[in-house]
Amino acid sequence: MKLFSGNANRALAEKIAGYLGLPLGESLVQRFPDGEVRLQLGESVRGNDVYVIQPTAPPVNENLMELLLYADALRRSSAGRINAVVPYFGYARQDKQSIGREPISAKLVADLIERAGYHRVIAIDLHAPQIQGFFNIPVDHLRSVRLFAEYIEREGLVDGSVVVSPDAGRAEEARRLSNLLGLPMAMLAKRRTGPTETEVTYVIGDVEGLRPLIIDDIVSTGGTIRRGVDALVAAGAKPEAVVMATHAVLVGPARSNLSHMGIERVVFTDTIALDAGEGYEILSTAPLLAQAIRAVHTHQSVSALI
Amino acid sequence: MKLFSGNANRALAEKIAGYLGLPLGESLVQRFPDGEVRLQLGESVRGNDVYVIQPTAPPVNENLMELLLYADALRRSSAGRINAVVPYFGYARQDKQSIGREPISAKLVADLIERAGYHRVIAIDLHAPQIQGFFNIPVDHLRSVRLFAEYIEREGLVDGSVVVSPDAGRAEEARRLSNLLGLPMAMLAKRRTGPTETEVTYVIGDVEGLRPLIIDDIVSTGGTIRRGVDALVAAGAKPEAVVMATHAVLVGPARSNLSHMGIERVVFTDTIALDAGEGYEILSTAPLLAQAIRAVHTHQSVSALI
Amino acid sequence: MKLFSGNANRALAEKIAGYLGLPLGESLVQRFPDGEVRLQLGESVRGNDVYVIQPTAPPVNENLMELLLYADALRRSSAGRINAVVPYFGYARQDKQSIGREPISAKLVADLIERAGYHRVIAIDLHAPQIQGFFNIPVDHLRSVRLFAEYIEREGLVDGSVVVSPDAGRAEEARRLSNLLGLPMAMLAKRRTGPTETEVTYVIGDVEGLRPLIIDDIVSTGGTIRRGVDALVAAGAKPEAVVMATHAVLVGPARSNLSHMGIERVVFTDTIALDAGEGYEILSTAPLLAQAIRAVHTHQSVSALI
Amino acid sequence: MKLFSGNANRALAEKIAGYLGLPLGESLVQRFPDGEVRLQLGESVRGNDVYVIQPTAPPVNENLMELLLYADALRRSSAGRINAVVPYFGYARQDKQSIGREPISAKLVADLIERAGYHRVIAIDLHAPQIQGFFNIPVDHLRSVRLFAEYIEREGLVDGSVVVSPDAGRAEEARRLSNLLGLPMAMLAKRRTGPTETEVTYVIGDVEGLRPLIIDDIVSTGGTIRRGVDALVAAGAKPEAVVMATHAVLVGPARSNLSHMGIERVVFTDTIALDAGEGYEILSTAPLLAQAIRAVHTHQSVSALI
Amino acid sequence: MKLFSGNANRALAEKIAGYLGLPLGESLVQRFPDGEVRLQLGESVRGNDVYVIQPTAPPVNENLMELLLYADALRRSSAGRINAVVPYFGYARQDKQSIGREPISAKLVADLIERAGYHRVIAIDLHAPQIQGFFNIPVDHLRSVRLFAEYIEREGLVDGSVVVSPDAGRAEEARRLSNLLGLPMAMLAKRRTGPTETEVTYVIGDVEGLRPLIIDDIVSTGGTIRRGVDALVAAGAKPEAVVMATHAVLVGPARSNLSHMGIERVVFTDTIALDAGEGYEILSTAPLLAQAIRAVHTHQSVSALI
Amino acid sequence: MKLFSGNANRALAEKIAGYLGLPLGESLVQRFPDGEVRLQLGESVRGNDVYVIQPTAPPVNENLMELLLYADALRRSSAGRINAVVPYFGYARQDKQSIGREPISAKLVADLIERAGYHRVIAIDLHAPQIQGFFNIPVDHLRSVRLFAEYIEREGLVDGSVVVSPDAGRAEEARRLSNLLGLPMAMLAKRRTGPTETEVTYVIGDVEGLRPLIIDDIVSTGGTIRRGVDALVAAGAKPEAVVMATHAVLVGPARSNLSHMGIERVVFTDTIALDAGEGYEILSTAPLLAQAIRAVHTHQSVSALI
Repeated sequence: MKLFSGNANRALAEKIAGYLGLPLGESLVQRFPDGEVRLQLGESVRGNDVYVIQPTAPPVNENLMELLLYADALRRSSAGRINAVVPYFGYARQDKQSIGREPISAKLVADLIERAGYHRVIAIDLHAPQIQGFFNIPVDHLRSVRLFAEYIEREGLVDGSVVVSPDAGRAEEARRLSNLLGLPMAMLAKRRTGPTETEVTYVIGDVEGLRPLIIDDIVSTGGTIRRGVDALVAAGAKPEAVVMATHAVLVGPARSNLSHMGIERVVFTDTIALDAGEGYEILSTAPLLAQAIRAVHTHQSVSALI
Repeated sequence: MKLFSGNANRALAEKIAGYLGLPLGESLVQRFPDGEVRLQLGESVRGNDVYVIQPTAPPVNENLMELLLYADALRRSSAGRINAVVPYFGYARQDKQSIGREPISAKLVADLIERAGYHRVIAIDLHAPQIQGFFNIPVDHLRSVRLFAEYIEREGLVDGSVVVSPDAGRAEEARRLSNLLGLPMAMLAKRRTGPTETEVTYVIGDVEGLRPLIIDDIVSTGGTIRRGVDALVAAGAKPEAVVMATHAVLVGPARSNLSHMGIERVVFTDTIALDAGEGYEILSTAPLLAQAIRAVHTHQSVSALI
Repeated sequence: MKLFSGNANRALAEKIAGYLGLPLGESLVQRFPDGEVRLQLGESVRGNDVYVIQPTAPPVNENLMELLLYADALRRSSAGRINAVVPYFGYARQDKQSIGREPISAKLVADLIERAGYHRVIAIDLHAPQIQGFFNIPVDHLRSVRLFAEYIEREGLVDGSVVVSPDAGRAEEARRLSNLLGLPMAMLAKRRTGPTETEVTYVIGDVEGLRPLIIDDIVSTGGTIRRGVDALVAAGAKPEAVVMATHAVLVGPARSNLSHMGIERVVFTDTIALDAGEGYEILSTAPLLAQAIRAVHTHQSVSALI
Repeated sequence: MKLFSGNANRALAEKIAGYLGLPLGESLVQRFPDGEVRLQLGESVRGNDVYVIQPTAPPVNENLMELLLYADALRRSSAGRINAVVPYFGYARQDKQSIGREPISAKLVADLIERAGYHRVIAIDLHAPQIQGFFNIPVDHLRSVRLFAEYIEREGLVDGSVVVSPDAGRAEEARRLSNLLGLPMAMLAKRRTGPTETEVTYVIGDVEGLRPLIIDDIVSTGGTIRRGVDALVAAGAKPEAVVMATHAVLVGPARSNLSHMGIERVVFTDTIALDAGEGYEILSTAPLLAQAIRAVHTHQSVSALI
Repeated sequence: MKLFSGNANRALAEKIAGYLGLPLGESLVQRFPDGEVRLQLGESVRGNDVYVIQPTAPPVNENLMELLLYADALRRSSAGRINAVVPYFGYARQDKQSIGREPISAKLVADLIERAGYHRVIAIDLHAPQIQGFFNIPVDHLRSVRLFAEYIEREGLVDGSVVVSPDAGRAEEARRLSNLLGLPMAMLAKRRTGPTETEVTYVIGDVEGLRPLIIDDIVSTGGTIRRGVDALVAAGAKPEAVVMATHAVLVGPARSNLSHMGIERVVFTDTIALDAGEGYEILSTAPLLAQAIRAVHTHQSVSALI
Repeated sequence: MKLFSGNANRALAEKIAGYLGLPLGESLVQRFPDGEVRLQLGESVRGNDVYVIQPTAPPVNENLMELLLYADALRRSSAGRINAVVPYFGYARQDKQSIGREPISAKLVADLIERAGYHRVIAIDLHAPQIQGFFNIPVDHLRSVRLFAEYIEREGLVDGSVVVSPDAGRAEEARRLSNLLGLPMAMLAKRRTGPTETEVTYVIGDVEGLRPLIIDDIVSTGGTIRRGVDALVAAGAKPEAVVMATHAVLVGPARSNLSHMGIERVVFTDTIALDAGEGYEILSTAPLLAQAIRAVHTHQSVSALI
């Protein structure tokens, strides 16, 4: 078994390697002067099962191309089973046609990953679990909800809280957390008040006097979260929201939105590289990924991790 | 262009044919004495674009096999483009691995349909819209939500109503109907009150004094609906629920559950064959499907129907 | 190595497991209320070579779907090599286009089995041996003719017998048995005596005063056998026919036809589940299949079994 | 529509072109000095449906390679539908594994033809009709049995004749001719009289005083035919056998074997190029092939020709 | 027929559209805040043959992803034939393994383009013509050498010139230009003078007193060109070199290297977007590409353009 | 691990087997009377990794077909990894479209090899290294240039020599040898002196008083070599040329051309079978191939051999 990493999140790759007691495989993943990826494996992989750790976080197209070229190099170098460890799966939100005449980008990316030569994918909290079915190869779909539940319990935040789904599409995921913690749940939703009006966020369910635990999979610009917190506070929730999300994409005004009034804590995992000094709580997914890799490699059951 | 039908829903196929001003193609779809499907096209299809109308409703494995064998016969008989019109897509609820060590049956079925030789699929209200991405061939995914919205308006049921999602997984779909009708929404969810307790259905959101418009995609045994109506009534909703669902699978105690106290009307579409005399309102999808087929065939835009 | 069974013939699967000294793998193969197959593996198969024992006997579409879903579940659960043990291969008689505009259903089924993810098929007495070539994956095609030859010898039925092919299409198989036993052969054939006449069965070759040993691969309704025995007796054969067939499909009037005057014994194998109390001789294929599975698994030659 | 020919049977290709009123497409199909095929289309085929007429008769590997390279050149030159017209399909007798550890060469050839880029195959009298199912692309399988039946009737050879299958494997085909002509049939078979004895050919069925009409698909060395005629004469048949076969492969001692005592006439088709002066009756398949090509091209039914 | 453009070179796309007398299709190709490509076709393409004009110039991974997503959107929107017009094919220089353990990136890109759904590629001056063979779909490989030859003749630069290949790998291409112009040729090559020495560029062939016409396919950093001009001048060539290259990648110190002493003119095509004000001669490939597209669309021969 | 050989070069296969200390696997590779390949493995290969040694030298189509059928037989006999060792890869010179409307035969052959079931290819000195990229399976591309460099050094032919490329297309390969030996290089090229004139070969670079070391990959008819030597001698080179080429195809007037005045030595490798008594120096590639096979099998690095 060998582990390799692209440039997307070397810190996470090294943590995983540490848990597994293995060095990261030597390789050079650079750019030619014209921006083409230059990839060169630094050691033989003939017959080795290989795990390439590379979330397709921004810059997504660069990181995706590194991931794809890794498979080609490994295949031509006669690696055994080639596994893509993609803790954050970019383009996942483009998982269906909403108004027609668009790509289903997440499906295209799944096809490219298969075509490049991967035999398996390990991912965390896919935006829609059905993305598993976009692949013909096996996908081990790990969940981070237990990490968040343990955090809430460890920090003594269970009492007086309500789990909140940031929109209707995440209600199912919020329900899981609410059931794990034995808490009630509420949901945010948007509607237009008239054809020319802007969208208004409103609360479904009772949040009066409760601390909102907002659980999402991805925080991108943070705008939805900020508007949601405003609506929660307006509906009587305590201005002490805990915002939890697996994937800290954090682009544009994200950091400013996350320091909005009413948000007390922000909790992310490390599927995407984040500086420790930014003031966010970071729950590491490295133990979970290391366990999954070991289970895959030793042919043990991954069910417990799913 | 030629239309063919299997045995799943000939009434719907004939309605579609009527709208298109075309006869159904002649074919024999029977069983050999040992139960094997016996299929024989009764007319030449060389060079014709063909639409096979066959929801994979119960008996699902029989209907699926007819659908697959149609493609083989059409391909070998040199049909042009071969289109599967599958108004109800069976196995759709098995669209992800929930506890591991299971098939993703909806993906397998998608693969079988492609492998048999179909070039395109036309479906209505797939259980998860991501199932589009299970296919490499184009999928025209039609929605029936407008049929239900028009029904509610036509019947004067808008005022004093609340749109209700029967569980967290359907919240996104319920939100669409609530936005179309300009109505508030609520959601039903389940939780266990303790490790040995049975599941309890509860209401999220305000339904006090309102008429619940429950919108679901599939009604199978109707148990979820019955328990949901009880919870709604207990939460103060009027005992005049309108239950709407696209696909009337209706097995086991479904009919008894749907005549439960608190349910005033039940509205289905005809994607699955239903006897008119059962007392349900039936909204026909034949015009929608006929328009989609015509648009596909004349290379016009289907976007308006999606 | 792990063995699993669907619902088609658990008795045979257990016999094979017994010969191999292995338990059958735990799994749940049931139906949801709407008739969809519900399959759940009960134990980890990561890295195991797996053999799924499932003849696609009637109800053929149900049994086929179980077989296909097994492969999907096994593949997604990361099994090693996935082998379909299909002692009776349904749809095999639809192996060519006879009058055009039909499917080649046996080819479609072969494609579906491959697409689902099987790496190899083990079958017995395919209706046409060319069905091997319908697959791109290896097919171990076992023959039961030796079982029948040994039975005839063991029972002292060689002397005074003639091997009879029930129609022209089976002549090659009958010739094999006649050569194994050192017996003469004859053949039954059908012809119309005039455009409006019904088909008449007649005998080619000499059967005068001999005991007919009729050898077929499948007995379905048994009509061909009954008419053949009548023709043989009319041609002077002894009314003590031994009817032998590998696959006891037995639908419709089969049992009545097989108790027709002139038939003394009926001998089947157990590729399809049969009650012991029906009065037929049953030769078990479990030892043959167990040997083949062991040879495949230990990379030994299967040639001797072919 | 354009027709092209390789070097296998240009006379047949020109006859077909004549029936269709089309010139053969210009192309150069030669050899480089080292024996590699050199193929150059002499005219544009962009968007044209193309039919390549090339039986894979001896030298089979040369003719097959020409057939495959044609598809590559046509595909890269952007032809429309590319059709292989393969009146004689070489390697067809290697259609199953008989003793294991052999290729199924006919399946490999089918795969190569598909991989090269053909969209359809038109063939005559495949050695086993199941070879259709070796292809995923449509195969129009034409039969020459009517040509032979018409010949026998035209020549006044019906009375006093018996149709004879040259071995058990061809019994089904012989039965068809016997039914078409309203004649009885017999069959030749081989057996060893003891472990060290040579194979002996014997007759099944009554041929006493009758003229044998032996019908085969391929005559290669003619040895089976010669031994069969001897057995027939020994069994009392008239020494006036008519030998009919679709494909005149004729290698080794074939011509000497076919002039054996007891053979009165030899009738072939022209699927394989034969000199007119050899004394064989030659029934042309060009009208049949031309009709099939026209039917395919104009999207009419080929069923009548099958 | 419809033309679409990504963001790589809209100026070229508009020029081609102008030559064809067609508008560019409406579409939106932007980025989401997190850098994912957002693509939305602005008009129906059902049944239309579509040409997507998108050189994969730097930023290569961004432009490639736009190209791939276009195919997915077009395919799902039921376009007819989908053609990739890729005047500059990025990653082309990574067309083989040179020291092992690397990807063959050009092959991977070819696979991705096919997988995304393109039916044909139109390219200009592929770094190696064999890249055609990396694709299974047809590739029309256009050459710009005539544009350069015409330029040299038009500008009166034939007399007193020598065609120079910038390295051994381009010798074949330089020979073509030298033959077209009736000029002698020379070649630059590199060698190390000792194990620790740096590489030295030297001249093979006679350049004394001649004007060097250096012809290359790609100019990236321009370093090879600058060192080559120094070697040519040192070998007695006139310091009036004309540098010609199809693809102006121009990264890093390219512009400074191209203004090096001894270079009189620099001539590029417009396969990659260049500002007119940079002082380079620009030969447009739009007429060539427009002709090729028209020929493909009207099923005429492209041979003349190759 | 098992080694098998076709009929193309059994001497080489036996040498390789000798180096590996293994016997050649037993198999029968013959012809049926009609010229079809008859292949029968003589031993079990279940689970074995297999290497089939078969250059596709003339008769190229016969040898290619043996290679393809081997894969089919091995696959159906359940071999493990199936490797094609193709020291000389026929059809390699047809690696691009030069004037359109031709096949890219080398690509077709690559596709056929993959389709037949090979998992890897080992080749020496492919005519263009890009042919690696014609395959989706890994290709180990070995080089013989070191064998030639060592020969030149061993024979004391370094001093006073110049490495000569026989045409522009081989310049890159000649440059490698010149760098390995620290020698200058020159190049031969062809031009027409006028539209009706024949082609003239001329020398680029300085060869005055030097011994030409001409290095090519393939010698077919030897005409290019003969004309090149004439041009070299005319340009003042010593009439003591050493002609080196990897693949001795040698057809037509090759032997006479290679004994032309001015050629002192001819050096080939044994990728193609040659009689020792022909007077050519033969460098064996068996050690190189044996090392590569061992490295592949033991999962060691092949980089050193590339």
